[in-house]
Amino acid sequence: MPNRTVFFVSDGTGITAETFGNAILNQFEANLHRVRLPFVDNVDKAHNTVRQINHAGVIDNKRPIVFLTLANSEVLQVIEENCQGLLMDMFSTFVHPLEKELDIKSNHRIGRFSDSSKSEQYQSRIEAINFSLEHDDGQSNRDLENSDVILVGVSRSGKTPTSLYLAMQYGLKASNYPLIPEDFERQDLPPALKTQRKKLFGLSIQPERLSEIRNERRPNSRYASLENCRYEVREAEAMMRRSGIRWLSTTTKSIEEISTTILQELRPERLKY
Amino acid sequence: MPNRTVFFVSDGTGITAETFGNAILNQFEANLHRVRLPFVDNVDKAHNTVRQINHAGVIDNKRPIVFLTLANSEVLQVIEENCQGLLMDMFSTFVHPLEKELDIKSNHRIGRFSDSSKSEQYQSRIEAINFSLEHDDGQSNRDLENSDVILVGVSRSGKTPTSLYLAMQYGLKASNYPLIPEDFERQDLPPALKTQRKKLFGLSIQPERLSEIRNERRPNSRYASLENCRYEVREAEAMMRRSGIRWLSTTTKSIEEISTTILQELRPERLKY
Repeated sequence: MPNRTVFFVSDGTGITAETFGNAILNQFEANLHRVRLPFVDNVDKAHNTVRQINHAGVIDNKRPIVFLTLANSEVLQVIEENCQGLLMDMFSTFVHPLEKELDIKSNHRIGRFSDSSKSEQYQSRIEAINFSLEHDDGQSNRDLENSDVILVGVSRSGKTPTSLYLAMQYGLKASNYPLIPEDFERQDLPPALKTQRKKLFGLSIQPERLSEIRNERRPNSRYASLENCRYEVREAEAMMRRSGIRWLSTTTKSIEEISTTILQELRPERLKY
Repeated sequence: MPNRTVFFVSDGTGITAETFGNAILNQFEANLHRVRLPFVDNVDKAHNTVRQINHAGVIDNKRPIVFLTLANSEVLQVIEENCQGLLMDMFSTFVHPLEKELDIKSNHRIGRFSDSSKSEQYQSRIEAINFSLEHDDGQSNRDLENSDVILVGVSRSGKTPTSLYLAMQYGLKASNYPLIPEDFERQDLPPALKTQRKKLFGLSIQPERLSEIRNERRPNSRYASLENCRYEVREAEAMMRRSGIRWLSTTTKSIEEISTTILQELRPERLKY
């Protein structure tokens, strides 16, 4: 049973507080109960938040841990003055040294999304998600040349979630294209990809793991058999090598790690940095 | 032209450093050049990183700003001892007070993904992404009852990107289902949704904005006309009201804000917190 409560408190979505707070908490083997408190954006809500946090401290008989990302200074003040939790104030801690270094005042903007929700950058991210959906699994060759990245690999090697992550996180138009037994017989890339070499990135996977994943979908099929998975992976890797396509194995990697590696290798133009 | 360089340095993907660093930097109107340096996980790479950062400082004639998320203490030491940038050490700053508070040592685990890449939680996230893709736009009623959330709304109100975000970020099986003119004529929800009331959440949108979005897809169509958009939105909102479905307008909201609100309202069971 969790013996201490952690709060993520924000005047925005709290996604930043939560992502970062969890990265910190992952450094500890502790049994924690997590509570997300987004949109705490006025003094009334701040007082409610304080009550909730202090109450958890009494119930747990342990001081709560509170990750804060608050741009609103009135809200911050209420919490600082009344909250009995251990405050991890993520904004102030870094904002003040930066004000000094840049010699400008911070503008107390909330979060990373509010002002930008309907900005050009945001629209291009939504457009990228739609593009990636339309170009999932080689569904469409129309506009393929407008892709920033085209992932290739055998069925179930991780192409779809990686494409969607690249679109959602980085606003990249990420297509994906399966390598299928027909391509292996022809010993050649799918024709539509031949003019897009620079944008291609391959995903491979251990045959044993691939067979497991495919068996969940189509138990005891030839498609999922270890023998067939071995054949497809061997042929796909040979084809990627022959065609000079950079690739990695997804077997022990998360979509975040795969995506970061792809960005490092391909350095797509659309990414400002 | 950017007059100062910001580095995001990590021994993992750097996604945490970047998300958090950008939330901080958003507080400033400064013209910055951003550089992402992931996977800096040994002493050699640390020295290269230091050289790159110090070089940028010379070129810019301004001290670089360096956001660090390093669990590896040897790498951290090289950077602390040699780097001329302003170090914003996001882990140490918060890890040390937590070690004291929890009275346990941190385990120096990298990032939030490495160990968990093939964990149960990770697998269920991938499963959720696949589920959401299969249940996009009312494509399939099979297994609909296994959804954690079912978004409803008129075509192009923001259902698809929101479903995918809920799946990717929170591992929720998020389906989405369009409300179409047929439903409005019948004045009733699509039959498949009637047993799923508790999981329904509505997305609406201003007719003017909807018409813009639809015109990009199908210029000058009846589908995109302001008149038709007004009709569909009015009918959809009336239906949501009649059916007691909670809903919000997506017009000025980002997918992160929409998703956070949905979680607050529906509190799906699958979410541990």
